[in-house]
Amino acid sequence: MLPQKPPVFPDGERILAVPQDKHASCFWMGWTGLRGCEKIGLSGEGTDAVVILEKTPFQEEKIPDLLKKAMKAELQMQNDIYCTFYLSPPPELSEIKATVVYPATEKHIQKYLRHEVHLIRETWEDYQNITLPFIQSQSFSIQWVYNILEKKAETERIVHENPDPSNGFVLVPDLKWNQNQLDDLYLVAVVHRREIKSLRDLTAEHLPLLRNVLQEGKEAIAKRFGVPGSQLRIYLHYQPSYYHLHVHFTAVGHDAPGSSVERAHLLADVIDNLAVDSTFYQKRALTFPLRADEPLFKKFQEAGKV
Amino acid sequence: MLPQKPPVFPDGERILAVPQDKHASCFWMGWTGLRGCEKIGLSGEGTDAVVILEKTPFQEEKIPDLLKKAMKAELQMQNDIYCTFYLSPPPELSEIKATVVYPATEKHIQKYLRHEVHLIRETWEDYQNITLPFIQSQSFSIQWVYNILEKKAETERIVHENPDPSNGFVLVPDLKWNQNQLDDLYLVAVVHRREIKSLRDLTAEHLPLLRNVLQEGKEAIAKRFGVPGSQLRIYLHYQPSYYHLHVHFTAVGHDAPGSSVERAHLLADVIDNLAVDSTFYQKRALTFPLRADEPLFKKFQEAGKV
Repeated sequence: MLPQKPPVFPDGERILAVPQDKHASCFWMGWTGLRGCEKIGLSGEGTDAVVILEKTPFQEEKIPDLLKKAMKAELQMQNDIYCTFYLSPPPELSEIKATVVYPATEKHIQKYLRHEVHLIRETWEDYQNITLPFIQSQSFSIQWVYNILEKKAETERIVHENPDPSNGFVLVPDLKWNQNQLDDLYLVAVVHRREIKSLRDLTAEHLPLLRNVLQEGKEAIAKRFGVPGSQLRIYLHYQPSYYHLHVHFTAVGHDAPGSSVERAHLLADVIDNLAVDSTFYQKRALTFPLRADEPLFKKFQEAGKV
Repeated sequence: MLPQKPPVFPDGERILAVPQDKHASCFWMGWTGLRGCEKIGLSGEGTDAVVILEKTPFQEEKIPDLLKKAMKAELQMQNDIYCTFYLSPPPELSEIKATVVYPATEKHIQKYLRHEVHLIRETWEDYQNITLPFIQSQSFSIQWVYNILEKKAETERIVHENPDPSNGFVLVPDLKWNQNQLDDLYLVAVVHRREIKSLRDLTAEHLPLLRNVLQEGKEAIAKRFGVPGSQLRIYLHYQPSYYHLHVHFTAVGHDAPGSSVERAHLLADVIDNLAVDSTFYQKRALTFPLRADEPLFKKFQEAGKV
């Protein structure tokens, strides 16, 4: 058991609220001490900290309590069969998750600050002149991907494998999915071939591989989790978060991060595009989002492309 | 001023919690009385009601209070510079918005129940044999669209107009956007031509119109709202919610509903597709989501396509 300590946060010299989404708020402050936390090693003067506050989701089993408890309620609107109240629930029915990073460096603060996102419209020439040299200059380690493919890690997590070295792949649950419920189902198919960095490298030569991923991936998920193919969003990211070809399988009812039109490409569309034109992805412009603080954004900016 | 009444909700005979998203919970119950609401006309026995509960977003100005107030805090995790607490905030710093529909009919209940969503992969033949006859059989009224185009409504809301009858359009803020902040900026361009139902009707003939929407839409939004084109997600829906061609402009940082890859088509991609092949949208398969209770879903089901 961890000790239970009440953190009482004082006013900081500077507080910068950076709402990450409607229900999470993130900010940093000139830290002047975290009362009550000394015992667990958190105390300081004038040191920055990042505190992320999140309202936790409703728990279904607590809803009857929420409806029965007497609490302050302010009627806001009444019209025909509709009315709206603002309720002030008692502490035991409210919950906020607070994640504290302390002491926080400038890098931590930058990570949590909200940065502007811009869309890049990358032509094939932009890819060759800007994106590809950038990817090659970075030594992204993808040893963890090879560990999965070589059965050195996550072996027990494999849901399906087609072992063919050129048209095969491994299907594993994504780390974002805890597998406790199907609502946010998220799996990833990682191909055995190692030379396909992204969508930009795909040609008609890869159609058998892509069709295997689509067909066998759906079948394996239906068999293991009972979710039919029609309830799966199956797509690639461009830019991907690592440059070894992989395909995302998410529950269509789940707004998975990265499933927006500016980053996701449906595998079925990719297959149709390649079937019509083998060099589709070596000639067409592709849109993708970049945060203004990302190094690749600066490259596009320097080239006068943003 | 509306009267302030504390609603105390009793246990229903049947409570069905249907989480709509992480922070909203919706359910219906056999209603046995809404104590405290009699005065405003809400009371009943055994009648259904729909109650939608939503945790409201953080208000930035209350965050310092939240950090200073003494409250119960449970330490969950501590590791190096990271630690996590669960806080139980006092009632005045918590808020739940409750929307009550009472009395609720079966139709209200169906509307708020979560329905399964399936993806349809519609071939051009499916469009001709299933979707198009269905659209034609429905008498969707789009008088409100014509009212905008004819300046009979929302005239003062127009942000930009190109009056050309064949290549022109009107740009208006979407009703989902209250224009109080740019974070969730949302505008819609409605074309003057009336015979284009959707993406499926587009050919190279429409390229001048589409290019006008893309170019002038960006310029008008930059001028009026100061948001550059690179921070706009510009797309069409398929299926659209009404069958008169319109284009969505949303802030790229805003997860606008309907911006997922299974429903949204970037206007820039549509233009490139048509420039390469005028009949692209009369031959290619398109994916779109349908709720299992929608009539069009039943048509696809009857045709053995789901």
